[in-house]
Amino acid sequence: MDLPAGQTHSAFSELLGCRLQRLDQGVAEVTLSLEQHLRNRAGKLHGGAIFSLVDIAMGLACSSAHGFDQQSATIECKINYIRAVSDGDVLCTARVIHPGRRTLVVEAEVYQEQKLVAKAQGTFAVL
Amino acid sequence: MDLPAGQTHSAFSELLGCRLQRLDQGVAEVTLSLEQHLRNRAGKLHGGAIFSLVDIAMGLACSSAHGFDQQSATIECKINYIRAVSDGDVLCTARVIHPGRRTLVVEAEVYQEQKLVAKAQGTFAVL
Repeated sequence: MDLPAGQTHSAFSELLGCRLQRLDQGVAEVTLSLEQHLRNRAGKLHGGAIFSLVDIAMGLACSSAHGFDQQSATIECKINYIRAVSDGDVLCTARVIHPGRRTLVVEAEVYQEQKLVAKAQGTFAVL
Repeated sequence: MDLPAGQTHSAFSELLGCRLQRLDQGVAEVTLSLEQHLRNRAGKLHGGAIFSLVDIAMGLACSSAHGFDQQSATIECKINYIRAVSDGDVLCTARVIHPGRRTLVVEAEVYQEQKLVAKAQGTFAVL
């Protein structure tokens, strides 16, 4: 799906191949396919790519919560990796669990079909 | 500098443009230049790219600690973002602070010149 009129995805999101699937008030769903350039030294989906997918989905969830006219920035984020990904697509769902005036607390899950790949929790600043 | 003979950087590391500067027992230094494709929606170095740099440096620090013949994988990592990067290079230094038999605890700092950009702490599993 498209972002609101006048908004564009980041160059980095385009580089990775992230695709926005759903955007609601405080919720974003973004998918990523395991292309060759996203592999780590063991041939799996790189942890940095998984974290980037999470950060991108979290940022969009924040924008949908406070409005795309206001910018936000990641202050901190913690991620747990649960399962390696060898091929196919993953889906990240990010949810704002506390939309404060100065900071937003966000959580995200990355799934491949019914299997949990990673779980993250972060804080974004409203700029 | 080059990796040990027979070792290659990951496809994802090449995609980002990470460059290994130093590799010692349990220590890795990796640099990244802010190219156009690494920018976020605000035009700064994307938080996902910074995290990826950290994860790549941490993985190399782990490999240098337990040997490149053994694989390791990120279990979890926490990152704090301190300063935005608008252009130029950043340097990540990752250090293994506990080289356990089953897990390694690693910390990393990302600097632009004398200014701290991000600080991270993570755990890697020995596979």
